[in-house]
Amino acid sequence: MQLYSAPYSGNAYKARLLLALLGQDYETIDVDIIKGPQGHPELMRLNPRGQIPVLVDGDITIWDSQAILCYLARRYGDAQWLPLEAEPLTRVMQWLAVSENELLFGLARARAVLRFQRPWDLDACQQLGRKGLAVLEDRLKARDWLATDCATIADIACYPYVALAPEGGLPLDDWPAVRAWLQRIAALPGHVGMEGIG
Amino acid sequence: MQLYSAPYSGNAYKARLLLALLGQDYETIDVDIIKGPQGHPELMRLNPRGQIPVLVDGDITIWDSQAILCYLARRYGDAQWLPLEAEPLTRVMQWLAVSENELLFGLARARAVLRFQRPWDLDACQQLGRKGLAVLEDRLKARDWLATDCATIADIACYPYVALAPEGGLPLDDWPAVRAWLQRIAALPGHVGMEGIG
Repeated sequence: MQLYSAPYSGNAYKARLLLALLGQDYETIDVDIIKGPQGHPELMRLNPRGQIPVLVDGDITIWDSQAILCYLARRYGDAQWLPLEAEPLTRVMQWLAVSENELLFGLARARAVLRFQRPWDLDACQQLGRKGLAVLEDRLKARDWLATDCATIADIACYPYVALAPEGGLPLDDWPAVRAWLQRIAALPGHVGMEGIG
Repeated sequence: MQLYSAPYSGNAYKARLLLALLGQDYETIDVDIIKGPQGHPELMRLNPRGQIPVLVDGDITIWDSQAILCYLARRYGDAQWLPLEAEPLTRVMQWLAVSENELLFGLARARAVLRFQRPWDLDACQQLGRKGLAVLEDRLKARDWLATDCATIADIACYPYVALAPEGGLPLDDWPAVRAWLQRIAALPGHVGMEGIG
């Protein structure tokens, strides 16, 4: 497998983390698209959105971090990572939606404003990000994992931009259950880090 | 089943449309949350995000439109709507991600600025929405449906805010393949409309 990735990308890190947890070998192709995807015609050919991550597995090309997590879990993981029965699958989907909404457009955008000088409204991003953290904290007060009784791709999808929230001006002091959950993920066998996540 | 919904909500309409296509009976509970969820403590109890739609099926409560589509397809639909093999499931997830990203934060937010006087940057929302439309157009030029050879929950998830794009100042004149796909969805047996979608 080849993964188009960048060291600073939390979305690409979701894929790298699950690949590591599943013990899968792959080749990393680093692509710097901070200034846009125009200089990378191969990436534009593989992904109509011009974004990373992109995973190539033989003749299958997958773009979007949520879709890559789903593919890896279904193809290389056991049912823990993506259960298929109606209710647990639905719980995974709920938290994937939070990762794509409050966490991506809140926490990740706030980080991108401060780290990469992106033009978004920092206050609005932080406000949305705090809503996401509050929903996570509420869920994790009495549970170890977001969707089921063990780690799923929902935890992997939500983890990077929560762990990186301080880079977006949102320290996690007020969210003790979230901090404990970050530690549980960091302790999973095979866990790897990224810039800003030890 | 009970569905917490609002006539103007494209996200709630996703659930109503799939319920209709699957021939499922349910009770609609209309909740007006344009001014926020504070006046609806029952909704806040059911959904920590304070949003519609919420589906209650016996003792199971599901929030988030993407999760509700997944639940309904898995519980009441056949495999057409949500295939479980690795590759088609992954394709469904890709377009669910587009629906949560470019379509929700682009098209739906542009509509919310113009229809509900929400405070977002109209130009930025329309720009993101156009990116989403371009990705859809590219996909639909040579295919009838987004994820597989037939309608899936990916089509249902993407449909409402594309069909409502003109309300956000984005007429669909430049996207003929998208318009033809909207007509295919409107022709599905059991299709129902909403305000602005005939």
